[in-house]
Amino acid sequence: MPIVVGLDGDDTLWHNERVFSMTHERFRALVDPFVDDIDLDRHLLDTERRNLATFGYGVKSFTLSMVETAIEVTAGQIPTSVIAELLDAGRQMLAHPVELFEGVAETVASLAARWRLVVVTKGDLFHQESKLARSGLLPHLWRVEIVSEKDADTYRRVLDGAGVAAEDFVMVGDSLRSDIAPVLAVGGRAIHIPGFREWELERAEIGPDGEGRWWSLGSFREIPALLDSLAGA
Amino acid sequence: MPIVVGLDGDDTLWHNERVFSMTHERFRALVDPFVDDIDLDRHLLDTERRNLATFGYGVKSFTLSMVETAIEVTAGQIPTSVIAELLDAGRQMLAHPVELFEGVAETVASLAARWRLVVVTKGDLFHQESKLARSGLLPHLWRVEIVSEKDADTYRRVLDGAGVAAEDFVMVGDSLRSDIAPVLAVGGRAIHIPGFREWELERAEIGPDGEGRWWSLGSFREIPALLDSLAGA
Repeated sequence: MPIVVGLDGDDTLWHNERVFSMTHERFRALVDPFVDDIDLDRHLLDTERRNLATFGYGVKSFTLSMVETAIEVTAGQIPTSVIAELLDAGRQMLAHPVELFEGVAETVASLAARWRLVVVTKGDLFHQESKLARSGLLPHLWRVEIVSEKDADTYRRVLDGAGVAAEDFVMVGDSLRSDIAPVLAVGGRAIHIPGFREWELERAEIGPDGEGRWWSLGSFREIPALLDSLAGA
Repeated sequence: MPIVVGLDGDDTLWHNERVFSMTHERFRALVDPFVDDIDLDRHLLDTERRNLATFGYGVKSFTLSMVETAIEVTAGQIPTSVIAELLDAGRQMLAHPVELFEGVAETVASLAARWRLVVVTKGDLFHQESKLARSGLLPHLWRVEIVSEKDADTYRRVLDGAGVAAEDFVMVGDSLRSDIAPVLAVGGRAIHIPGFREWELERAEIGPDGEGRWWSLGSFREIPALLDSLAGA
């Protein structure tokens, strides 16, 4: 049975949350001196959530949300020099080196020797393309799909466009909401590799419908063996 | 002979430059009181050009460039209330209604009855998808390709992915640099519909190689007749 393997990008192939965490820390350090006893992370998350429908995902959206939050929580008392530093923090995120997780480079190469690989990644088109180009993984990929939202409709469209039947598709990712639940919903299978920490906007529960069609692995390196067993090798 | 028609989005199907112009005006009105005798447009364009390689195209990039320019040209003297207004201007651009050019809705419908249509549009994935969804044109489109840059490689990839030969492809757009020159370079044909005003970063010259393979029309409505004549109908 042929298998087409879907791979999530951020926090599955390469570190992303870590870069956001570092910037969160910088945001707190920069804004904290101008506020009294405020949960800055909570305010920033609220702004992000509010902006999601207008801005979409990605570093540029996040940078705009940082600036907006800084002005809001300080009632405009934040100095423009700090705002300039927030812009710079956003720029540094975009320019940050792509750091693959341990084992990813070799495992992707060995997966590519046996299966067709398609990266399905969410976020800013320009930034995701730039990260893929710098990841060194492009030669191993059959297709790349950069999408604005990873819901069931998106996966249906991606599979149709690639001419792949859902039952031949196995998606690998760190997010239950974006990589596992919607793939199960369209009839595919999925491998969850939990990340260091889940972003609050990515939480989900998997219903009993998906039983027997998804697995959780501790490391990217364990994927080939699982796929071999699925393929009855 | 089958023809696949490529359609640019911004300033070909719908108004875009006009929205940017309005925001430019707002930027000038907001920042002008804090500077002496400075060419604000020139400074903003310089910032945009400098940021293009890190940010890519689109409204979010433009908004970040407006904030950066406002801080820079006022040496940090711009009030945060103005920065908040610039963020708001960006948000309004994203939420701005999609206004099709005169004749586009009917012409796209009639083109779709005869040819396969693919929108090839550049910019922010999330915003372009949102504009397409609100344009009402989606039911007429065979494919949608949102790309980060419209160069010859991009068109080659789009045509390969769609299984379309370059000689069967005719691209329609307002930008010589993005819609005409690269399509001629890969062996396709192109129809230029000059816009009201060309963005400075979109200028280009078309070499003699392209002669006989591109045409300039005054209105979107003239496309079907030209395609009919190309197809020998």
